Amino acid sequence: MKAEIISTGNEVLTGAVNDTNSSWLASKLTEAGITMEKIVCVGDDVKAIAAALTQSSKRSDILLVTGGLGPTEDDLTAKAAALAGKDRIVLNRTALAKIQNYFKKKGWDMPEINKKQAELPSKAAIIENTAGTAPGFSMDMGNCLLAFMPGVPHEMKKMFQSGIKPLIDKRFGHKEKILSEKITVFGLPEAEVNLRLRDFNEKFPGLTLGFRADFPLIEVKFFCQTAAAEENVMALEMKEAKNWIISKLGRRLVSAEGLSMEEEVGRLLVLKKATIAVAESCTGGLIADMLTNVPGSSDYFLFSGVTYSNDAKIEVLGVKKDTIIKNGAVHEDTAVQMAMGVKKISNASYGISTSGIAGPGGGTIDKPVGTVCIGIAGPDSARAKRYFFPFAERSMNKKIFAAAALDLLRRELTYCLTPEFLQ
Amino acid sequence: MKAEIISTGNEVLTGAVNDTNSSWLASKLTEAGITMEKIVCVGDDVKAIAAALTQSSKRSDILLVTGGLGPTEDDLTAKAAALAGKDRIVLNRTALAKIQNYFKKKGWDMPEINKKQAELPSKAAIIENTAGTAPGFSMDMGNCLLAFMPGVPHEMKKMFQSGIKPLIDKRFGHKEKILSEKITVFGLPEAEVNLRLRDFNEKFPGLTLGFRADFPLIEVKFFCQTAAAEENVMALEMKEAKNWIISKLGRRLVSAEGLSMEEEVGRLLVLKKATIAVAESCTGGLIADMLTNVPGSSDYFLFSGVTYSNDAKIEVLGVKKDTIIKNGAVHEDTAVQMAMGVKKISNASYGISTSGIAGPGGGTIDKPVGTVCIGIAGPDSARAKRYFFPFAERSMNKKIFAAAALDLLRRELTYCLTPEFLQ
Repeated sequence: MKAEIISTGNEVLTGAVNDTNSSWLASKLTEAGITMEKIVCVGDDVKAIAAALTQSSKRSDILLVTGGLGPTEDDLTAKAAALAGKDRIVLNRTALAKIQNYFKKKGWDMPEINKKQAELPSKAAIIENTAGTAPGFSMDMGNCLLAFMPGVPHEMKKMFQSGIKPLIDKRFGHKEKILSEKITVFGLPEAEVNLRLRDFNEKFPGLTLGFRADFPLIEVKFFCQTAAAEENVMALEMKEAKNWIISKLGRRLVSAEGLSMEEEVGRLLVLKKATIAVAESCTGGLIADMLTNVPGSSDYFLFSGVTYSNDAKIEVLGVKKDTIIKNGAVHEDTAVQMAMGVKKISNASYGISTSGIAGPGGGTIDKPVGTVCIGIAGPDSARAKRYFFPFAERSMNKKIFAAAALDLLRRELTYCLTPEFLQ
Repeated sequence: MKAEIISTGNEVLTGAVNDTNSSWLASKLTEAGITMEKIVCVGDDVKAIAAALTQSSKRSDILLVTGGLGPTEDDLTAKAAALAGKDRIVLNRTALAKIQNYFKKKGWDMPEINKKQAELPSKAAIIENTAGTAPGFSMDMGNCLLAFMPGVPHEMKKMFQSGIKPLIDKRFGHKEKILSEKITVFGLPEAEVNLRLRDFNEKFPGLTLGFRADFPLIEVKFFCQTAAAEENVMALEMKEAKNWIISKLGRRLVSAEGLSMEEEVGRLLVLKKATIAVAESCTGGLIADMLTNVPGSSDYFLFSGVTYSNDAKIEVLGVKKDTIIKNGAVHEDTAVQMAMGVKKISNASYGISTSGIAGPGGGTIDKPVGTVCIGIAGPDSARAKRYFFPFAERSMNKKIFAAAALDLLRRELTYCLTPEFLQ
């Protein structure tokens, strides 16, 4: 089974926006055992979209299209679909009712302009959009099943999972099943992960291994396609492969279940019935933001003091003025007092802290941009450690500082570390 | 002048890696006044790459190709270029010398396998790779200039800037210049922005208008291509268009210079020599993270207290226990005390606060998921207001709550609001 993807939109074609939709869809199709043949991106141009639809539909069994279903003049995908499919545009009553209902639920009147989103090819079958106004639709051209989705990533993803994937499964059957696993890693470059796992293909010839950088984490994915009769054998093979990978990654492994750093930390805190408070300087609230992105985090996350100014470090967290005068804010002694201070004021089981230089300014020869001191205070002891991460960008530095602080807590919760381990 | 981009590689085609190369190259070509027509991605397959090269080169003046120049078996781009260009593969002595030299500089012997990277179409003209082993090359097919680059992003970028952009400029000259402007908007749906600006094309027929949602902000972009002789006239037209757009957007305009919400708030705080402290409940550190993503924010951002627990609201910010018992944490009275409290403890000019329900849990009939109370305390007064944002996802709720809080401060700093305005 062959598939192609078309993304439409001047913002994608001109590079104003990165086309993450195609990549996400391609991975979903690949995981479903469908062979990706081509990804094409064209601008907001009826003829260009129609030509791309015609060409791709001739070559493939499944054609997924994103973008151009909005209410504005440059949303031209429905028109192009009609042109390519030798069809005409009609007002689709089902689609109109769904759009009206969307607005009604929010207590708003539907603006006249949104009516355009219900003007679709006469052959189109509506696919519900639970997250926005633009209805999706499917239609056939020759032997190809075409599915049209909005370009807004979260709307597209929901629509693919709930409306389009079932359509594909129904049409083409589940002859083969995909078994897949994801493992997350922190603290190793991708090349090093690759090197540690280089014997994978030889050891597990029936499985496919892939990597994906989700900075600063690396995702290791492996999967196989299997007929129903072979499923038990392959499931065992997958389990063996997982154990082998875990053995190669050691303490750099974040989660064998593919959890993100903040999800894994959250899971461990719930497991240990522990709570966390954070004192952030250079990470500027990012650690708290990450932790509170996890639903249910209010059960264990109590407080973060984003103490950018030295005064706030002293007044709110109780860091000693002398320590900052003597060593500066970016120092192990400051970090450890921050961690202890925030643990104390919020009565948490653990306190973690960051003080460092995210850049672009503020670096010195002794403490260049990329330097961070991370503190941790637990039930029995407190300590801090200095790290240097050689990333040029402020946003990357914030991300890796935050991940490193959470990783320290993760290892503490997982291995009950002795201070020696931190060296 | 028309351009297309082809990226090659199974890892991109199957979604294992996001194709950031094409997006970067597309933006560089667009900025240079070259019209992007299509982006295509194909896998590691000689025939597929050759077919894509043939098709794209027929339609365009410039064709940029990335990936497949490495030393391994699945690096097939040179072979495909020879096939499409009806050429043969030869060992290119210049390329070989460059690869040998690359290894020599690092003090290593060249592995035999890397010799393959010098096997190129006989018509290829070498483009130097200063950052890796794979030489780039250019060749002509019909009227199209083709340039081949490695897929490793930093090698590709360096090669484009130093070797390929000059080649394009030399061949096609700089006949046209691009003038472009960006304006940011908050608090209006994209459809409403579109509606307000619907007369743009009629009023400014020489300019092109576009929108891009960068949730929860909308970016309005407009641009024109102009010959050098017309540049002054078009610059005036652009200025007029900007003033017209500003007049249509009113107080929903965030920045006429295209700044993000946090950059604009930062700019205003510096301008007014004011400082800010934040008390965050439901936004969980996101406001602080946004503010501190702006370089130089340590000049005005003093502190954020991410007080998820009620105890932290009471202990750290001095919210009255009675207020929380009587009204709950999500209430105007709590929000205003949070804003006043954080302003006081950090001695800032302004305090802002959020307390709301980001979901998925925690909603009630009176206070459904999406409810947020935002407080602001300034030099003279403090107040709070309740909002309801009907977005389903936790991460979207956090984003729009944070933007709404910063927007309240932005409007305060811009218009010196009376409390009435906030209604």
